[in-house]
Amino acid sequence: LQEIDNLSNIISRLPSLGPRSAKRIVLHLIKNREYLIDNFISCLNDIKHNIRYCDSCHNLSNIEICNICANARRDHKIICVVEDVTDLWAIERSKSYNGLYHVLGGTLSAISGVAPEDLKINSLIKRIASGGVEEIIIATNATIEGKTTSHYLVDQIKHYNIKISQPAYGIPIGGEFDYLDDGTLIAALNARHDLVNG
Amino acid sequence: LQEIDNLSNIISRLPSLGPRSAKRIVLHLIKNREYLIDNFISCLNDIKHNIRYCDSCHNLSNIEICNICANARRDHKIICVVEDVTDLWAIERSKSYNGLYHVLGGTLSAISGVAPEDLKINSLIKRIASGGVEEIIIATNATIEGKTTSHYLVDQIKHYNIKISQPAYGIPIGGEFDYLDDGTLIAALNARHDLVNG
Repeated sequence: LQEIDNLSNIISRLPSLGPRSAKRIVLHLIKNREYLIDNFISCLNDIKHNIRYCDSCHNLSNIEICNICANARRDHKIICVVEDVTDLWAIERSKSYNGLYHVLGGTLSAISGVAPEDLKINSLIKRIASGGVEEIIIATNATIEGKTTSHYLVDQIKHYNIKISQPAYGIPIGGEFDYLDDGTLIAALNARHDLVNG
Repeated sequence: LQEIDNLSNIISRLPSLGPRSAKRIVLHLIKNREYLIDNFISCLNDIKHNIRYCDSCHNLSNIEICNICANARRDHKIICVVEDVTDLWAIERSKSYNGLYHVLGGTLSAISGVAPEDLKINSLIKRIASGGVEEIIIATNATIEGKTTSHYLVDQIKHYNIKISQPAYGIPIGGEFDYLDDGTLIAALNARHDLVNG
């Protein structure tokens, strides 16, 4: 049936789904269409019409300036630079950070052809240049692309007189040596610190 | 953001998805909203307005009688009874069957409170009683509920003078003894047949 194939095609190309789970989802939607489909459509419409990017940090928002940037109780002197909104969500879930963010929208990548002007780097420089920022935490992922992007950002930012930091690499809490990849082990050993004299 | 939470909630309750993959999917929809969301909504609307159940076999259809039931080149003397449309799809994918189907819409289950009148059993009996059917293949799943349903169906059908069969149980093609569950092994050994004298 064309109707089922069309919807399956769209769903199967969403992240973490394939043709078989897509069929199962379509069937579930059909079985529960009375309450599910109208609800689904109205939520999709809300996303389409109400969600935009924050003018300052490029976080998702339903107003010009997102809740985080507009929150006077957060520390506006620190900006944490992340690749994507999912990284911002992960840090917010941890409740370990009270500063602002800057969402780059990806990483530099020669292979995928992502150049500095494809990322929100200029607007980060502008935020720094306009003053008031004392620290930039570069929290790109610990991948080759993330590190390349981090190096590029440091190059662009270092002549402003502000602190530039990155989160520590090491053994994840609860992690066992036997299950760690070599890269993490090397990073953890290189970053070892004195237990007695701190 | 309420808009994102609402859509995530709906998506995370679909089969084979959870809260994290739902967030990833919502983000993907937002990033590609230009072409994706309108298309998605229109496909959902098509499903809602055009998809119905076949009046004869309860397969999904966009007309009163589904393509399979309406196909004169299929064998209308054999009906294969399946639990769900996914089972029908699996058998159709195998291209090993050319008869008709009957989709029960589930299995009998004391625990979930599914009684015979909740399944499309009456309409199966009516199809048999109206004549022309020579064989019923009961292809419910090899689970306790599937077998219970199969026994019940045999009881209901056996006084009609037609053949009632079920697909063979045994070792899956490519299967290794060491990895088989005991139930399959027992079924395969009990159904052993003579290699020399067939």
